[in-house]
Amino acid sequence: MASTFGALFRITTWGESHGGGVGVVVDGCPPRIALDAATIQRELDRRRPGQSRITTQRKEEDRVEILSGVFEGHTLGTPISLMVKNKDARPKDYAEVRVKYRPSHADYTYQAKYGIRDWMGGGRASARETVGRVAAGAIAKRILHDAGGIDIVAYVKQVHDLVADVDPSTVTLDDVEDNIARCPDAACAARMIARIDAARKDGDSLGGVVECVARNVPVGLGEPVFDKLEADLAKAMLSLPAAKGFEIGSGFAGVHMTGSTHNDPFYSDAGTIRTRTNYSGGIQGGISNGEPIIFRVAFKPTATILKEQETVDVGGNPTTLRGRGRHDPCVLPRAVPMVEAMTALTLADHWLRQQATRSYPAPSPGAAGGP
Amino acid sequence: MASTFGALFRITTWGESHGGGVGVVVDGCPPRIALDAATIQRELDRRRPGQSRITTQRKEEDRVEILSGVFEGHTLGTPISLMVKNKDARPKDYAEVRVKYRPSHADYTYQAKYGIRDWMGGGRASARETVGRVAAGAIAKRILHDAGGIDIVAYVKQVHDLVADVDPSTVTLDDVEDNIARCPDAACAARMIARIDAARKDGDSLGGVVECVARNVPVGLGEPVFDKLEADLAKAMLSLPAAKGFEIGSGFAGVHMTGSTHNDPFYSDAGTIRTRTNYSGGIQGGISNGEPIIFRVAFKPTATILKEQETVDVGGNPTTLRGRGRHDPCVLPRAVPMVEAMTALTLADHWLRQQATRSYPAPSPGAAGGP
Amino acid sequence: MASTFGALFRITTWGESHGGGVGVVVDGCPPRIALDAATIQRELDRRRPGQSRITTQRKEEDRVEILSGVFEGHTLGTPISLMVKNKDARPKDYAEVRVKYRPSHADYTYQAKYGIRDWMGGGRASARETVGRVAAGAIAKRILHDAGGIDIVAYVKQVHDLVADVDPSTVTLDDVEDNIARCPDAACAARMIARIDAARKDGDSLGGVVECVARNVPVGLGEPVFDKLEADLAKAMLSLPAAKGFEIGSGFAGVHMTGSTHNDPFYSDAGTIRTRTNYSGGIQGGISNGEPIIFRVAFKPTATILKEQETVDVGGNPTTLRGRGRHDPCVLPRAVPMVEAMTALTLADHWLRQQATRSYPAPSPGAAGGP
Amino acid sequence: MASTFGALFRITTWGESHGGGVGVVVDGCPPRIALDAATIQRELDRRRPGQSRITTQRKEEDRVEILSGVFEGHTLGTPISLMVKNKDARPKDYAEVRVKYRPSHADYTYQAKYGIRDWMGGGRASARETVGRVAAGAIAKRILHDAGGIDIVAYVKQVHDLVADVDPSTVTLDDVEDNIARCPDAACAARMIARIDAARKDGDSLGGVVECVARNVPVGLGEPVFDKLEADLAKAMLSLPAAKGFEIGSGFAGVHMTGSTHNDPFYSDAGTIRTRTNYSGGIQGGISNGEPIIFRVAFKPTATILKEQETVDVGGNPTTLRGRGRHDPCVLPRAVPMVEAMTALTLADHWLRQQATRSYPAPSPGAAGGP
Repeated sequence: MASTFGALFRITTWGESHGGGVGVVVDGCPPRIALDAATIQRELDRRRPGQSRITTQRKEEDRVEILSGVFEGHTLGTPISLMVKNKDARPKDYAEVRVKYRPSHADYTYQAKYGIRDWMGGGRASARETVGRVAAGAIAKRILHDAGGIDIVAYVKQVHDLVADVDPSTVTLDDVEDNIARCPDAACAARMIARIDAARKDGDSLGGVVECVARNVPVGLGEPVFDKLEADLAKAMLSLPAAKGFEIGSGFAGVHMTGSTHNDPFYSDAGTIRTRTNYSGGIQGGISNGEPIIFRVAFKPTATILKEQETVDVGGNPTTLRGRGRHDPCVLPRAVPMVEAMTALTLADHWLRQQATRSYPAPSPGAAGGP
Repeated sequence: MASTFGALFRITTWGESHGGGVGVVVDGCPPRIALDAATIQRELDRRRPGQSRITTQRKEEDRVEILSGVFEGHTLGTPISLMVKNKDARPKDYAEVRVKYRPSHADYTYQAKYGIRDWMGGGRASARETVGRVAAGAIAKRILHDAGGIDIVAYVKQVHDLVADVDPSTVTLDDVEDNIARCPDAACAARMIARIDAARKDGDSLGGVVECVARNVPVGLGEPVFDKLEADLAKAMLSLPAAKGFEIGSGFAGVHMTGSTHNDPFYSDAGTIRTRTNYSGGIQGGISNGEPIIFRVAFKPTATILKEQETVDVGGNPTTLRGRGRHDPCVLPRAVPMVEAMTALTLADHWLRQQATRSYPAPSPGAAGGP
Repeated sequence: MASTFGALFRITTWGESHGGGVGVVVDGCPPRIALDAATIQRELDRRRPGQSRITTQRKEEDRVEILSGVFEGHTLGTPISLMVKNKDARPKDYAEVRVKYRPSHADYTYQAKYGIRDWMGGGRASARETVGRVAAGAIAKRILHDAGGIDIVAYVKQVHDLVADVDPSTVTLDDVEDNIARCPDAACAARMIARIDAARKDGDSLGGVVECVARNVPVGLGEPVFDKLEADLAKAMLSLPAAKGFEIGSGFAGVHMTGSTHNDPFYSDAGTIRTRTNYSGGIQGGISNGEPIIFRVAFKPTATILKEQETVDVGGNPTTLRGRGRHDPCVLPRAVPMVEAMTALTLADHWLRQQATRSYPAPSPGAAGGP
Repeated sequence: MASTFGALFRITTWGESHGGGVGVVVDGCPPRIALDAATIQRELDRRRPGQSRITTQRKEEDRVEILSGVFEGHTLGTPISLMVKNKDARPKDYAEVRVKYRPSHADYTYQAKYGIRDWMGGGRASARETVGRVAAGAIAKRILHDAGGIDIVAYVKQVHDLVADVDPSTVTLDDVEDNIARCPDAACAARMIARIDAARKDGDSLGGVVECVARNVPVGLGEPVFDKLEADLAKAMLSLPAAKGFEIGSGFAGVHMTGSTHNDPFYSDAGTIRTRTNYSGGIQGGISNGEPIIFRVAFKPTATILKEQETVDVGGNPTTLRGRGRHDPCVLPRAVPMVEAMTALTLADHWLRQQATRSYPAPSPGAAGGP
């Protein structure tokens, strides 16, 4: 189960960072969706290492192959198997970490849990595993677009203490892709890039916050109780490497408000029920209410740094370790397509679930704004 | 699926706040565990409404009945069915909300999704649904205790802008139960209680933060990729009513650090591999590393207030609504046992999953700290 | 997982034969379905012990209580909790089996698997567990009826060597309920009843075959590969107590045919694609083809008999055991509603799954008989 | 879900018969199992087309590639991705079936369900899909062997009306592989081969029965109620292409017995509890009892024949179709490794599930033969 995500739109990712390749099987994709490799490649290129001077210099072209599930340019409704071969693997870079645990990496916990680990580049714990997520996310985005123009945009909201000023209701993909920091606030983006450059030169790393908005989400996605839409989004985000926190709508800041200021008043906008404020973040009682879904994800400073650190070897003996070779001084710019992908996967799954629920007789007349 | 949580230790809750009752079926509980109603009742009493002057005055004794799965004082390994009957239901309190949507409640989204709703007290969206979670959590706690003294303590860390000073490494259940605010910082607790009292008199409500620590968690719980332990904890917490945020270890504050200060150095403590700091919050790569698991959950101000608010009726027409009757001015004190329960359910499920993984041949000698 | 059946229309049964009661939680039921206790009670009465002289004389009225999920006579889309209290439990009947394993019962395997067992009446292995299935099946039948008149009829096809002559295309529920053998062939039914009576007097038991037909099933239910409709039906049937075999369409007899006689030729019946024969049993490639779904289930002779048998005690020592008290000389008549219920649960689940699949764009014009 | 099998040892197959290839992702495999491609290839070679004159002459070498989850010759505990490229695809062979539905194939139901289909060779409905099952089954067999010498042997028990005489308690893999019919009864095998040859020459096809025995299965595998071991085996078998029936132990023939002759008396064999007869087929109450698990699977005559048949085109118009090119006159010999694979996958999954169940405290002393 560990490598599968979703109930109806299900993806199963596979692959180690330095094995034969990485990939994903997408099961439960509806039939007759126009799909080609280019649509998927576009998203993979946004995730790709070496895409700019502020990301790791590992050279991977990440060419996706569609192995099944697509016939004459359309999905068959059968499993879609996508594969990306690994190219630029440098085992020698990992000779030292074969015998030493990198601080705040998964080396130790994997070894302890399994009694074995792929010591070359982190295996499944590598950000490379997200190739499969981003590839599948491209398909999910296509479904959501066709299902009513559901539109997902994520961007770098904060790097270290630099906080960008962005309007979630209007921000576009072009705004995000306008600079290598993927921060739509150009002035702040410039400062972020300089800050990341400095960290890289210093052999250190930085964390930050990605904000994501989903617009045109129909009313009714999400389930009561355990599979609340925000609960599945929280799981999706915390499943990303380096994620440390998730908040939706008012989030942690909402704690400083009172019910009378935090509640979102309902009003009728030409027959559509809307809310005047959106502290709920587009979800109430676990179910989308038609307002934009807005949340933020905190990412820790990358664990791989080029400074000497205290650690132990696999025998438990004290030693030190200094990272070398290629590293990502700040994961945030590449985290943006990952956050978008996990959001798309979560929404596509709930969109399909909603079809089964609403399939029964038409809602009673009393159902204001009913599906 | 919506009402089921867990992969191996699975609970399915049922019940509306004003129907025949609420309950839970626990499937996958190991056999031969000593279990009686009193063990479960203790936890339910901590969640019960009307337990103090700062909680809702709804009178429910919440007596639990064990209907199956326990024989001669021990679990059978078969489904354990637990039921609590509803007593103090006052339909007349809800005549107005039958036709008006309460702001920031689930009335509108349920109606839109299902075309029908139980308008008496919020149905499944009511905090009353958590009776089943807390009851099942009591069983999970028992398993975790027997599995090696795994110990879970949650407490109110913050109410509005009042932040308590608590040491997660030493705090005990007694410290938490010492006052009705469930805040181990007595001085701060007194201020919290006064603040909540004031909000209640004002017909308004407050939010806050619950912090939770799990100690003596063995190394190796959690799965790579999607079912990371922190991801399942995040889902568990965001599935609680009124939850708006989750952060583990350094969380959102970690963004302000750099990799060289945020990484947790490993050292050997008499043969056991430990970390000098715990910004990771006890989980690395989705797998527990043996350090205390520490996280925080943000809860919004309760949506039910006694002030007049703008809203619409079920026909979509503008109107106003003033809450009346009983309300919880601050959900935090009662949220503490809910957070503990969801934590216990998540850890018990992963503890059982780990048994299957580690069941195969003994780990290789190289596995420092291996299972 | 063991006690849950279904992917979208999910039921979880609970309860031991001599505990507080038995029940089921139905999750995933569509909203706005008219439902009352009488609809469910009708099916339970067909399963009830003591309903005729050829069934066990245990007296249970099996009154069902709807505890949740139904509001003002309609389903809410939330979990429906159904409970039946146990009444006529006679622990003293089981003093001997507390220490001796009944041949071909689950006493030994449960004890070996769990290290504990409810020795009073077989616990979960008792046919009493099927109360929850039959109750949930009544809801599934309602959904299927509303979904297009899908009609399920099961009947006793064979008892010992007595084989009935029944036309699956025309048999009705009334034909089945016309006699206590639940065999629509009146003449054969009389012989079956006499045969069962003789077995009861002799303290022995008989097995037989239940045949089931589902009519008006739309084209397209079922999934390729593992969740083929016949695969899920086979699992559903073999999960019933005493079931030993399942065959669909031509089944084991089809082995004696050749492809040229076994293939079902397609033809067009006023625009509808039909097959001239139905050796496929209404399913091709795991997916319903619109023809009647026809299958048979073999049930072994009831394990409980009143003759002395060789066995061992819980210590493994040789001993003998003679069943006493009440027993079911032939499970077939009561198995009929169980087979119908499991069929309804399987079809309702796949009907809901099909909604999600077909929810996407309209099928291409080329799709003859497309959804 | 449709393409995933198993709860803990989960496989997800992908691939159409004439697409880029076919494969499987195995998730939940325990770590540290010695595994190489040769172990998997051995099983694939038994399933391979063109392996003998009585199977289809399609030429596929079916070379397996291990893409992930194996490191330095051992499993990592992470997903194992296996791929086999398609080689001998001849689209021109399928020009006619692009516009005509083959009787008793999945062409029509796939088109009706999805509104699109891969008309080249049946896509997912092709026996080629089982490549992934057989490859994963080889891993499952390895686990079962290491878990206590669990040994699975399947063989052709019947072809048309030719029934072999085989002793399930002693039959070996070598006996099965001794002839191309995979029937350990050499004399009967010769007749089967001649019969299949005749059918091929006649452009017709034959069905038959595969019998399978699993020996050294520990007591305690399987779950009560829905996930009974025989229920999961029944689903596994009916999910195979062309399967029409399943029976375990006495099966349909048991109907002709009475309880007093059908019950399996217990006795103590030097401290081990055994049964004198095994009409139960090694499973009681859904749980293995330590006796050999024995079951049979009926396969229909292959649908592809070279005779002219009545059918309709995709527009629903009457037409005729004569199969051409390569076909399998009798699927039985190649079905043997498929049945073994599905049996291994089912047992490995339940073996892992059992670890979690029994992980808790030692069984009570009273547990005769307890785990």
